[in-house]
Amino acid sequence: MASYNNAQLADQIPFSRYPPWVLSKLRPQAVDLIHRVYKWVETECIPAEQIMKAQVAQNRWKTAPLMHELRKKAKSQGLWNIFLPNHFKESPGLTNLEYSCCAEIMGQTYWAAQTMNCHAPETGNMELLAKYCTDAQKEKWLRPLMNGDFSSAYSMTEPDKATSDATNVSCRITQDGDEYVINGRKLYGNALWNEEMKLYILMGCSDPGNPDVWKRHTMLLVPSNSKGLTMRRNLTIMGYDHAPEGHGEYIYNNVRVPKENVILGEGRAFEIAQGRLGPGRIHHCMRLIGQCERAYELALLRCKDPRKRPRGKYIGQFDSNIERLATMRIEIDALRLVVLNAADTMDAKGNKAGRYVIAQSKILVPETAAKIVDTCMQMYAGQGLTQHTPLPEIWTYARFVRVADGPDAAHRHQVGRDQLKLHEETRKRHQAYAERARALRKTWGIENPDAELDWEYVPPTAPKL
Amino acid sequence: MASYNNAQLADQIPFSRYPPWVLSKLRPQAVDLIHRVYKWVETECIPAEQIMKAQVAQNRWKTAPLMHELRKKAKSQGLWNIFLPNHFKESPGLTNLEYSCCAEIMGQTYWAAQTMNCHAPETGNMELLAKYCTDAQKEKWLRPLMNGDFSSAYSMTEPDKATSDATNVSCRITQDGDEYVINGRKLYGNALWNEEMKLYILMGCSDPGNPDVWKRHTMLLVPSNSKGLTMRRNLTIMGYDHAPEGHGEYIYNNVRVPKENVILGEGRAFEIAQGRLGPGRIHHCMRLIGQCERAYELALLRCKDPRKRPRGKYIGQFDSNIERLATMRIEIDALRLVVLNAADTMDAKGNKAGRYVIAQSKILVPETAAKIVDTCMQMYAGQGLTQHTPLPEIWTYARFVRVADGPDAAHRHQVGRDQLKLHEETRKRHQAYAERARALRKTWGIENPDAELDWEYVPPTAPKL
Amino acid sequence: MASYNNAQLADQIPFSRYPPWVLSKLRPQAVDLIHRVYKWVETECIPAEQIMKAQVAQNRWKTAPLMHELRKKAKSQGLWNIFLPNHFKESPGLTNLEYSCCAEIMGQTYWAAQTMNCHAPETGNMELLAKYCTDAQKEKWLRPLMNGDFSSAYSMTEPDKATSDATNVSCRITQDGDEYVINGRKLYGNALWNEEMKLYILMGCSDPGNPDVWKRHTMLLVPSNSKGLTMRRNLTIMGYDHAPEGHGEYIYNNVRVPKENVILGEGRAFEIAQGRLGPGRIHHCMRLIGQCERAYELALLRCKDPRKRPRGKYIGQFDSNIERLATMRIEIDALRLVVLNAADTMDAKGNKAGRYVIAQSKILVPETAAKIVDTCMQMYAGQGLTQHTPLPEIWTYARFVRVADGPDAAHRHQVGRDQLKLHEETRKRHQAYAERARALRKTWGIENPDAELDWEYVPPTAPKL
Amino acid sequence: MASYNNAQLADQIPFSRYPPWVLSKLRPQAVDLIHRVYKWVETECIPAEQIMKAQVAQNRWKTAPLMHELRKKAKSQGLWNIFLPNHFKESPGLTNLEYSCCAEIMGQTYWAAQTMNCHAPETGNMELLAKYCTDAQKEKWLRPLMNGDFSSAYSMTEPDKATSDATNVSCRITQDGDEYVINGRKLYGNALWNEEMKLYILMGCSDPGNPDVWKRHTMLLVPSNSKGLTMRRNLTIMGYDHAPEGHGEYIYNNVRVPKENVILGEGRAFEIAQGRLGPGRIHHCMRLIGQCERAYELALLRCKDPRKRPRGKYIGQFDSNIERLATMRIEIDALRLVVLNAADTMDAKGNKAGRYVIAQSKILVPETAAKIVDTCMQMYAGQGLTQHTPLPEIWTYARFVRVADGPDAAHRHQVGRDQLKLHEETRKRHQAYAERARALRKTWGIENPDAELDWEYVPPTAPKL
Repeated sequence: MASYNNAQLADQIPFSRYPPWVLSKLRPQAVDLIHRVYKWVETECIPAEQIMKAQVAQNRWKTAPLMHELRKKAKSQGLWNIFLPNHFKESPGLTNLEYSCCAEIMGQTYWAAQTMNCHAPETGNMELLAKYCTDAQKEKWLRPLMNGDFSSAYSMTEPDKATSDATNVSCRITQDGDEYVINGRKLYGNALWNEEMKLYILMGCSDPGNPDVWKRHTMLLVPSNSKGLTMRRNLTIMGYDHAPEGHGEYIYNNVRVPKENVILGEGRAFEIAQGRLGPGRIHHCMRLIGQCERAYELALLRCKDPRKRPRGKYIGQFDSNIERLATMRIEIDALRLVVLNAADTMDAKGNKAGRYVIAQSKILVPETAAKIVDTCMQMYAGQGLTQHTPLPEIWTYARFVRVADGPDAAHRHQVGRDQLKLHEETRKRHQAYAERARALRKTWGIENPDAELDWEYVPPTAPKL
Repeated sequence: MASYNNAQLADQIPFSRYPPWVLSKLRPQAVDLIHRVYKWVETECIPAEQIMKAQVAQNRWKTAPLMHELRKKAKSQGLWNIFLPNHFKESPGLTNLEYSCCAEIMGQTYWAAQTMNCHAPETGNMELLAKYCTDAQKEKWLRPLMNGDFSSAYSMTEPDKATSDATNVSCRITQDGDEYVINGRKLYGNALWNEEMKLYILMGCSDPGNPDVWKRHTMLLVPSNSKGLTMRRNLTIMGYDHAPEGHGEYIYNNVRVPKENVILGEGRAFEIAQGRLGPGRIHHCMRLIGQCERAYELALLRCKDPRKRPRGKYIGQFDSNIERLATMRIEIDALRLVVLNAADTMDAKGNKAGRYVIAQSKILVPETAAKIVDTCMQMYAGQGLTQHTPLPEIWTYARFVRVADGPDAAHRHQVGRDQLKLHEETRKRHQAYAERARALRKTWGIENPDAELDWEYVPPTAPKL
Repeated sequence: MASYNNAQLADQIPFSRYPPWVLSKLRPQAVDLIHRVYKWVETECIPAEQIMKAQVAQNRWKTAPLMHELRKKAKSQGLWNIFLPNHFKESPGLTNLEYSCCAEIMGQTYWAAQTMNCHAPETGNMELLAKYCTDAQKEKWLRPLMNGDFSSAYSMTEPDKATSDATNVSCRITQDGDEYVINGRKLYGNALWNEEMKLYILMGCSDPGNPDVWKRHTMLLVPSNSKGLTMRRNLTIMGYDHAPEGHGEYIYNNVRVPKENVILGEGRAFEIAQGRLGPGRIHHCMRLIGQCERAYELALLRCKDPRKRPRGKYIGQFDSNIERLATMRIEIDALRLVVLNAADTMDAKGNKAGRYVIAQSKILVPETAAKIVDTCMQMYAGQGLTQHTPLPEIWTYARFVRVADGPDAAHRHQVGRDQLKLHEETRKRHQAYAERARALRKTWGIENPDAELDWEYVPPTAPKL
Repeated sequence: MASYNNAQLADQIPFSRYPPWVLSKLRPQAVDLIHRVYKWVETECIPAEQIMKAQVAQNRWKTAPLMHELRKKAKSQGLWNIFLPNHFKESPGLTNLEYSCCAEIMGQTYWAAQTMNCHAPETGNMELLAKYCTDAQKEKWLRPLMNGDFSSAYSMTEPDKATSDATNVSCRITQDGDEYVINGRKLYGNALWNEEMKLYILMGCSDPGNPDVWKRHTMLLVPSNSKGLTMRRNLTIMGYDHAPEGHGEYIYNNVRVPKENVILGEGRAFEIAQGRLGPGRIHHCMRLIGQCERAYELALLRCKDPRKRPRGKYIGQFDSNIERLATMRIEIDALRLVVLNAADTMDAKGNKAGRYVIAQSKILVPETAAKIVDTCMQMYAGQGLTQHTPLPEIWTYARFVRVADGPDAAHRHQVGRDQLKLHEETRKRHQAYAERARALRKTWGIENPDAELDWEYVPPTAPKL
């Protein structure tokens, strides 16, 4: 078994990308797993990208034969469900930090995570089911999901509400005898057109008049073959249909599910939602970093491509490109530090305490990643935007993550409002400086008649406006 | 007939967007034409976008029936070939400035220019043919193009050369009896799959050993049904196939054309290329500004969409969005000033003297436009990236223009190198400052022992390195 | 007399910097004046910068002998008060556009405008006095100001209020018999320490209880030697004291002025303030462009300085610097277009109609200028931040203008809120698209069941929130 | 003694700013020291800033009495030389990581590091002397420096050479009997005008003809009272003179020092220089982060300052400012992760292996810090640029570090050139992908006739140009 003490290993990709503090936290079994994930992606995924494309092109809404085969093979090698946290008995027991290293590697090929049953939205859904479902629900839905028998989606966003503020979710859930009846429209959530898709986890509004806005919503398990559930069309993301998974636009027209399909209980959707999103955001971010590394390598290749020599020089001999390489290298590595720290913080303090570091990743990574990939595309000039490189798809993924789970602004507002809560505490500290300054000035016989305007000035407590 | 003195008119779109100096330069017939182009686009193009999409979806590589009808109708109304400069007898006689106003309007819908036979690459091709072809060539190729009977493409870019430096073009042209024989690969150039496409204007290398690198290349007229010319696939741009025009990837395998198909003469490709690109770049830029206005209006609509109220407020009540609107408004208007000035400079001094202002537009507009549209997309959150809005297609067009006709860096290098030529003249002026300063210091009795380090210091003439 | 038809002249600085549409609007007498201003600055100002520095260093709060001499000489040459608009009989009759060209040239040396009595805040003050004062007031204050006998300042900003929203101005004006009594604090306004400073134009609050917030404030003429008016200290801007003019911090402690010193009348301060700021902002922006040209020339000199050759090459041989030169060149020229268009718009439509274009200049120019100068400083490496170059002072001026007359955000808010007023009109236009689209779809037999979600969707009128 | 297990402590500043992985690496004695440094800066430094200003204003080139007193007091409390690495017997034995935490705290007040004898350039000089000097040299120079008896400077930069490439250093060292004779000019290096300044460590060129460019230079110990050494003037940085330390501009005119003053030996300057700069850059960066925290707190205070309410709201109620706070918070914390990782990497692998992470910090931190502080200044509007806040000085420090030890571009070039060395290794990996892809396509029966253009294409080895 490999070990992080193995200096030779630490000089090799992917370990050479990790900072010492991360290397020292990877346990031997994690090192081994990371190593195997790396080999898997390098050997089975990256080189198979054109085959996957070709198979999907033949049958756009059917999971490709290659995907089925790779999933079977990965499962047999234990490269399966490795995102699962410790408390699952099937879990390989990786920490968030350790799994993050895996997620970066998986990110290099868009669909690699799926070969290991570690893809969004499955991972979030499986955690949700594991955490909040009854045993009967788990037996029916979680077990086959973990087994890879079918796939699931999460239905929250709506086309006609600002659901980045989830209290606006308005898809209506009413009761009728032993059933819930659902009416409304939903955006996003993988495509019904793919026959593997069996389950939607739906967030809807069951009690719109409840004075406590956090108790108005309920989550239901909705089988994809429910009568009245139709997919109007597939949403494209910057023109990509992302088949065969896709992003559906749904109409719920008197869709009925039995009462036993409620998760946790009526009015408890926000309790569930709280816990769901953190790790998934980190996974997205790490996969994006993997995509950045992929894009960066392509830029590096271009820099000394003997075919492309404007004015007789490699483009890597133009120092503007040398500066671009340096800037990208430095930024990718900084992003990795941010996300790995978020993962480690979740390990140390739990998901809830990790709220800030998760938001930090969610805000910084997609925006910076899109910028980096854009630079790589530009270094490829005309070819950079075509299917000659995977760069347009990588860029699109980064751009997508900037709006997935709420646009940047929503996360900035959350962080910024939390920061404002520190105002009074900060003010008091500065008040202490001012008092101490007055005392010291006295000692030294130095007057400052302008103290009330200068940086010694501290405003009084802010009245509530 | 409308007149620019009509104050009421000047308060209406599109005239309200033009600065006074532009309004005062628009002649009455131009005002009338701009007005009619505006009505045309508002009434016949923007509202028909979904129909065009639906028709193209039914038959991806065939020009849509709607397009045929609109072209017929536009032609009958004199909204046809209006890009044509004065020296054509069929020209409506618009100045570059006046036509730029039209181009902005056309830009609001991607395909509106085509309804008026004013779309790229036709416009550049028609100018080229008009300027450099023999009468016989004109009769055969130019007349039907101007008539709208078929379409044409321009073939310069190559997949395996840095053709942003066009001296690298390597597609081989050899002679064999009365024919030229062509071998090589080309990227871009509308798709052969569309049966309207009849003519490629090809730039190739006919004399690779010529010591004068500017005389190695030749331009040929290549009928699209030439034997040996095949389209391997269509290039996608950020995932969009841009059917039914597309962007082909071509193989020329012993393609033969008669010698009479040479334009201007062997080895004269650069002479021709010089004159071709300027106006087209300005048209692209103005259309992009039209696209920005379209995107901006959508952002404005979103700002007070009653369905979208996070935390109970219109998103236009968040001052961050107010700042975004202001920033976008200010930047769009600045871009328009830049491009209209470029057009006016070409009117005043000719295309060649306009080289710098054209480059200025080409560098500033696409990059800024892409940024602006990205902001609009983000204001739409999740929906902004889907087909719910035209924003992804608008963004893609802006991104595309950043690499079309050479990436930003190529244009920056051109401008920057020209600037360096001003070094010696600038140095001399500063030398005069220094001498005058010495004299003045003497008069005033002020010594500056540090003059040789200070800003009075002027370096000597730079020896050639 | 020179003429803009003189092609040779148009190839020379400063005329070579103006776009054709500007050149064609410069009347012969303006061309002549611009030419003479240019010669003046080149010969008398730029080379004398070190002398001015030396004289000010000797006597920080006294106007330098050189300044006195240059003012006398400029006046004798008719280079005096040239900012004055047409309606003054002493005016040389320049348009805003023509004067803007002069202002750019003056900008090259921080104090050049002062040699021609065209410096801030004098210009704004003189216009204000000319527009709103009685003949007696003019005789006493305006005539000597125009004559250059003393100087004046404008006192509005306060240290303890958000006076970027001027309704917050709280310096108290009360009546006592035939006098007004003033109590409060003011920031900015040139230093009392300079004995040339004779007059403060003060904005204060005379009627805090008036229900009309726009009628609470009054403007007074306050002689600098008024009893009770003291300058606590000089404000530094990024560390610069800007002596001998400075920026004072004032206390008004029962300062009394006779009632005849009221401007226009009690409660009419906002009426006056409206008209004051526009032209001054344009002058600041044009001077900043002149500063950018100065900084740019220094960067160009550095690019081929034989003493500075890292790794054996001129820094201008590194293409990253070539790209920097190009980017700066392009941006400076774009800024000039923006400001000259603002000036021309004011000429065509008046100051009030120019509100938007003035804000556009005020937002774009200082921020971009600071960025450009920062790039130049960085190209000078360590020396760029020291007194070896004027770059730090130039940067500081640009940075200062970003907060002078209100920070960027205040201007962005104004523009953005005005834009939101266009919402309903825009919405109606889009409503018309949607209706037309429905009709066209019917004609073509194309259904769009998703129209209510797509870009054909137009939100209803936004209810007032 | 405090301990990092103390959960209460970890919730308090400064510990609450550190990520879990850092907290877990701080040994109890370091936690205690960090705690004491924090108290020291909070109690003795921040509140004394105005006193220090007042004392320096009275006697610009003399170390202030307050500084002398604080140094004495800090030394007595063991807050002295704590930067010193483990191998010194006087070292408190902090790791780079632990000391970095201290450096951030010291950064909050510009001169706080000096109170603990941990300021630049002393720290670098002391390390250099400790590492490379003979015992006799140490006794004479190092001991008093460590004791705080006098101060020293480092003289490398030259006004008329591109010394960011140190092989250009041209200050001439020749031999004459038992002495070295020095002739040349130097920039930077603290001011001779301060009588505490006793020693310059000079880098000069002793063997310009040596074919090995890395052996041409020598370092000498130059007493500040050497005959022929004169300080021409003090350099200002963005207008600040930084008295009483300053930045001198020096002339060496036949300055003679005894041969025993050579460090390590003739021609060995580069050997010495290698080891010097790493830790100092990290210290600068951490102090800058401390400055950012200071600026950020001021922005936070302003957000709810009851005196400043444009349009009746705290500026912190405008969501644009909420977004600004969030962005700054997130960026400061990301910078800290970058620098602490650099420190930890140096601990784990040594200074040399840390070259990349040091460059990463040096490039990212000053540029981002300047941007953050600029945002804070702008939130203070007009007051932000004046001496009402410490923000202008903080900004200037950040801007200065962008050029200190070489401009950004020099560091980017170093990183970028190192990255290009990875080209061939990367190419080989991609070659392996391509080969595997061919094999897999065969297995699956999928042809890709375009493989040579697609992302499967891998360019051949790049020939040396």
